[in-house]
Amino acid sequence: MNNWTEFIGYVGSFLTSITFIPQVYKSWKSKSVGDLSVWMILIVITSTIVWLVYGFGINSGPVISANTVVLTLSLVLFYFKLTFKKQ
Amino acid sequence: MNNWTEFIGYVGSFLTSITFIPQVYKSWKSKSVGDLSVWMILIVITSTIVWLVYGFGINSGPVISANTVVLTLSLVLFYFKLTFKKQ
Repeated sequence: MNNWTEFIGYVGSFLTSITFIPQVYKSWKSKSVGDLSVWMILIVITSTIVWLVYGFGINSGPVISANTVVLTLSLVLFYFKLTFKKQ
Repeated sequence: MNNWTEFIGYVGSFLTSITFIPQVYKSWKSKSVGDLSVWMILIVITSTIVWLVYGFGINSGPVISANTVVLTLSLVLFYFKLTFKKQ
């Protein structure tokens, strides 16, 4: 792996990290999550945990950092999904 | 990287690949995507393209395969977002 690849990895990591920020913001503002699939959220939670294990296994900073943030935000969305009443 | 790590990577890859399947299914059935953030979808499209470049760079099968599927499904969600009328 060279520096260029590492850089691209961190760009991907950054973008993945911010993926759920607009969704969390929109859901928080609207208090409406009826159109969100709870299965999608549960799969994201599960997959990020698995990716974290993989990230530590291959010692990939981008994989570890991105999935830590996404796991946190997907737990927030899951909380919203449980809390906000369906419209 | 050992076989165990590779296996975990493919489990993560599989889970990530199926992440948007329930969301695409729910959106298709309900024809309602008002609660979905278009910015989330656009970030997913961008990030998966970047991850594909990274995946080829580090020659990671799990990264490449997962992001190929997610890119395809996020393009479908983007099409839904453009097509279905807001409720």
